[in-house]
Amino acid sequence: MSINMQVAPLDTKKRESIQQIIDQKTKPLGALGQLEDIASQLALIQSQQNGSLATNIQIKHPSVLVFAGDHGIAEEGISIAPSAVTRQMVQNFIHGGAAINCFCRANNLDFTVIDAGIIEPLKQTGSNFIAQRLGKGTHNFAKQPAMSMEQVEQGLSYGAQAVKNVVDTGCNLIILGEMGIGNTSAAAAILAAITGADIDNCVGIGTGIDNQQLVLKKQLIIQALQRFDSSEPKVIMAEVGGFEIVQMTGAIIAAAQAGITLLVDGFIVSSAALLACKLQPNVRDYLIFAHHSQESGHQLLLQQLDAKPLLDLGLRLGEGTGAALALPLLTAACHFYNDMASFESAGVVV
Amino acid sequence: MSINMQVAPLDTKKRESIQQIIDQKTKPLGALGQLEDIASQLALIQSQQNGSLATNIQIKHPSVLVFAGDHGIAEEGISIAPSAVTRQMVQNFIHGGAAINCFCRANNLDFTVIDAGIIEPLKQTGSNFIAQRLGKGTHNFAKQPAMSMEQVEQGLSYGAQAVKNVVDTGCNLIILGEMGIGNTSAAAAILAAITGADIDNCVGIGTGIDNQQLVLKKQLIIQALQRFDSSEPKVIMAEVGGFEIVQMTGAIIAAAQAGITLLVDGFIVSSAALLACKLQPNVRDYLIFAHHSQESGHQLLLQQLDAKPLLDLGLRLGEGTGAALALPLLTAACHFYNDMASFESAGVVV
Repeated sequence: MSINMQVAPLDTKKRESIQQIIDQKTKPLGALGQLEDIASQLALIQSQQNGSLATNIQIKHPSVLVFAGDHGIAEEGISIAPSAVTRQMVQNFIHGGAAINCFCRANNLDFTVIDAGIIEPLKQTGSNFIAQRLGKGTHNFAKQPAMSMEQVEQGLSYGAQAVKNVVDTGCNLIILGEMGIGNTSAAAAILAAITGADIDNCVGIGTGIDNQQLVLKKQLIIQALQRFDSSEPKVIMAEVGGFEIVQMTGAIIAAAQAGITLLVDGFIVSSAALLACKLQPNVRDYLIFAHHSQESGHQLLLQQLDAKPLLDLGLRLGEGTGAALALPLLTAACHFYNDMASFESAGVVV
Repeated sequence: MSINMQVAPLDTKKRESIQQIIDQKTKPLGALGQLEDIASQLALIQSQQNGSLATNIQIKHPSVLVFAGDHGIAEEGISIAPSAVTRQMVQNFIHGGAAINCFCRANNLDFTVIDAGIIEPLKQTGSNFIAQRLGKGTHNFAKQPAMSMEQVEQGLSYGAQAVKNVVDTGCNLIILGEMGIGNTSAAAAILAAITGADIDNCVGIGTGIDNQQLVLKKQLIIQALQRFDSSEPKVIMAEVGGFEIVQMTGAIIAAAQAGITLLVDGFIVSSAALLACKLQPNVRDYLIFAHHSQESGHQLLLQQLDAKPLLDLGLRLGEGTGAALALPLLTAACHFYNDMASFESAGVVV
């Protein structure tokens, strides 16, 4: 039942030819900063797909997949809202009323929300809604493993399937988003388990808990980490993961496998990216990091992934919002790579 | 001949009602970070225009105006390129081959380039080109005033006229950009003259000069500043300004006067914004800052204007590129302000 973990590393031999294209554009060397790095990475990924040097790079049918799941740990009162809000927000996504829906409309992104395991299932189905549930929320990981190893494997497989569906529509760029009351606790526990870093560097206030809740949140995570001693990603997912995090991990691996660029959102999606990179390091080549979240653990997580995100707007919402906001920068990078004049063609002599 | 400097301050009494609209959206308080500030500012500006609380905010016909001018100081060899490149780049803008053209196409921005006084005039005219020349480049400000007070007044008036032209087409958001070999020297001198700050905090490497050139650049600016002792913006413009900078200053004042939002680009445009705010402090209400340039003086300039820009991508190109890249964030802010569900409408109970 385990998913295929094979991901081809990018052929970096083309990097120099790509840099030459960029350096001949009518601008001082390096003057477009991070946008040049993005163009270079997109060109490298798309060269791999083409089999030859990509001189024209495109973002086709970019798509947002929001994975929702509930977390047993939420019963401890370490979030600003009760678990019921996860389901209410899934309905909000389906009806198009959430922030991510607005940003999808603003930036022409396709949108799908996936029930990865919220407590109470929705009755509805719809073209922008998929149910691939792993259960009625995870167990409270402070007291017992969040899920079984079978659920981990099934979740990786479900996530991979969601990506295959959108890839079949011609999409070559995917944004993952998430919703799940309690999921900053899961992401912080994953980060602490993988890195062994001090808990204070991993845990933050989420969407706005008070200091007493923060102290409790740290205690509960420490308690969970004492139960097991493994840096194996699947074990960590079973012990302290979330259904949406596991499915996103599978989605990230499947996307890299298909040669699809992933635009990574904030803290929770980054925790899935870290798990995916631990399972298969070649995944990293296909990741672009959208934004630096306000959540304090994100800094350490980004360092672990050697990532310098594009935006730093003080966002702490999730849902894929930061990545949806960053997408136009990738589109702009394609435009300059494809269409900007060279010194020679423009007759500019420096 | 002096331009009208009257600008109405924003009626901030509406700020609280606007914040209420934002706080009822289905997200934790403040979770959209700087995007909330942008939505609030746009709503305040558009409420002023409407005369009533703006519950629907729009960016209409956003337009980029790139002002080009040459600088006598360039003869000192303190740039990476000769003055001839200013003219070559103006032609590149007209033909659509520059970075700013690519970003205008990517983000649906109208584009006009304005010859504010390059050395050798172009023969051509065209729908996206305006010549309103103040001369064949400025004088070398290290040796004598860059221009006369008559040229300053004429330049302010020309800049204001360029804005009036685009406002007449229904535009309610303007991006200014610039091109002019040597213009980081002028902007740094303006910053030093207005703030009295240490020259090391004002002067940077522009698009990439070496250390020897940087030392010379600082010496020449100090030399110019010793010639006069005034913090009067028009005197500073005459002494060390540039034709494109003066015209942009007039453009900024005229835009604020018309209730138009200005999305401010990098170091050079910010120097014009600083001049405009010194001439008329109410202008500040209409400015949104797009990006933090790599140019070292920009940090101080932004502090002077109490500005926290949206992007920090390591750009050092000018042309309005940083602002053009930031525009989709403003569009996204409009979308969430207008269309995002409230807790009540979505049935979300926190």
